[in-house]
Amino acid sequence: MRNIALLLAYDGTDFIGSQWQNQGRSVQGALEEAWEALTQEQKRITLSGRTDAGVHAYGQVASIRSTTRHPPLTIVRGLNARLPEDLRVQDACEVTPDFHARHSAIRRDYRYLIDANMVPLPALRHMVLHVEGRLDLAHMAEALQILEGTHDFAAFTVQSPDQKRTVRTMHCAKLTEIELLGGRLIALDVAANAFLQHMVRVIVGTVLLVGRGRMTVSAFQQVLEGGERKAAGPTAAAHGLTLMAVHYPPGLVRWESRQA
Amino acid sequence: MRNIALLLAYDGTDFIGSQWQNQGRSVQGALEEAWEALTQEQKRITLSGRTDAGVHAYGQVASIRSTTRHPPLTIVRGLNARLPEDLRVQDACEVTPDFHARHSAIRRDYRYLIDANMVPLPALRHMVLHVEGRLDLAHMAEALQILEGTHDFAAFTVQSPDQKRTVRTMHCAKLTEIELLGGRLIALDVAANAFLQHMVRVIVGTVLLVGRGRMTVSAFQQVLEGGERKAAGPTAAAHGLTLMAVHYPPGLVRWESRQA
Repeated sequence: MRNIALLLAYDGTDFIGSQWQNQGRSVQGALEEAWEALTQEQKRITLSGRTDAGVHAYGQVASIRSTTRHPPLTIVRGLNARLPEDLRVQDACEVTPDFHARHSAIRRDYRYLIDANMVPLPALRHMVLHVEGRLDLAHMAEALQILEGTHDFAAFTVQSPDQKRTVRTMHCAKLTEIELLGGRLIALDVAANAFLQHMVRVIVGTVLLVGRGRMTVSAFQQVLEGGERKAAGPTAAAHGLTLMAVHYPPGLVRWESRQA
Repeated sequence: MRNIALLLAYDGTDFIGSQWQNQGRSVQGALEEAWEALTQEQKRITLSGRTDAGVHAYGQVASIRSTTRHPPLTIVRGLNARLPEDLRVQDACEVTPDFHARHSAIRRDYRYLIDANMVPLPALRHMVLHVEGRLDLAHMAEALQILEGTHDFAAFTVQSPDQKRTVRTMHCAKLTEIELLGGRLIALDVAANAFLQHMVRVIVGTVLLVGRGRMTVSAFQQVLEGGERKAAGPTAAAHGLTLMAVHYPPGLVRWESRQA
């Protein structure tokens, strides 16, 4: 039995999320259907992590155990020929039997895009959160930086008895202004060993309170330290979020054909 | 009678183009309907220039003569409340009676976005042209630079007996690599006093031949000098193109509320 890793990109707009559900169009479901059409195998595909409805991915990773003999490039082309245009396989490679898309991952990178123009940019409306009013970007960047390091992120996730271990290590949390189609786009980039449910979106919702002057940077720090979900801001909309990359220990995944 | 200028942004994907046609959903038609709903006036709206089906705009300009007493901000909000979400009014201002969105314009800026990743980025598929294979960006930038200055652009437009004056002044033609959602995005920016029909798209189609090594930079220069449409490359797809800005003589249009 081979173990195959897939690198995926998708537009989350018309998916109910990454994970298979009883009803609706999921990334996992679409991928498993295309896999069966290509290989005649009915297989369960494992993703590096769940993305909510509306959340996009540029560098999602999946793994699948299979007896197919197709080489990686044939798998990429064969799946893309059978997948809808809002879900693409960017690369495939064979991995060792112990590789698991979720358990082996050591770091995830997310980007949240904000459109701070007075009127939203129509061409970007499905991938960027439009916010009204002025934002203090310097304070937002300061608040983000507080998150770097190892902390208990209980305040920034769904309060649930299931979430017992809420300590995560944030490798990087920064703000960048980018220019794509004019106007002001703000990218919030966060990278951590792993993320709790809704964690990026609650961080963004809380950082936006700081940006609007409704929460000071030191109050933001107290939210982190206090660990109370209700002290944090609202969960920011899903459609601004993109899973950018998933990292594995060196040598575990060697993508074949992806351009540098 | 007041003369009012409107600053528009739209996602061109679901429009048949900017200009009203007998059938289909045009930017002009949607705007005229919203104008009538807001003011009860049936008016003809003038755009700075035509954009084809699928072409987007970030800074399109329209003008309209009206007896409405609404202040500019009320017009912006009132129209946006009545317009579909893929067409937004970013700003409005009163202009002098001699202002005409098309005739008064002295410069147009366009951006063409290219996705040079092996597999297209799904979230960007409606606004970026995906091209396969490697591109020589340095040669593409060199070819673009040849276009700067005043030239006869007959080779880069639709061959038609109607197009008699084909000399235009290209203020700027450059290539930039930008980073939005990972991967390689290439922006081709061109700015000229005015553009001929399909001019940006034929330029892009020809510059892509240079990028792929199928035309040398000196052959590109000969295409410009020869003035023969058939020597140039194919017309690049509409959906990669965005009208970024329209410029007027200083003082003619003073947008009120647009963020810097």
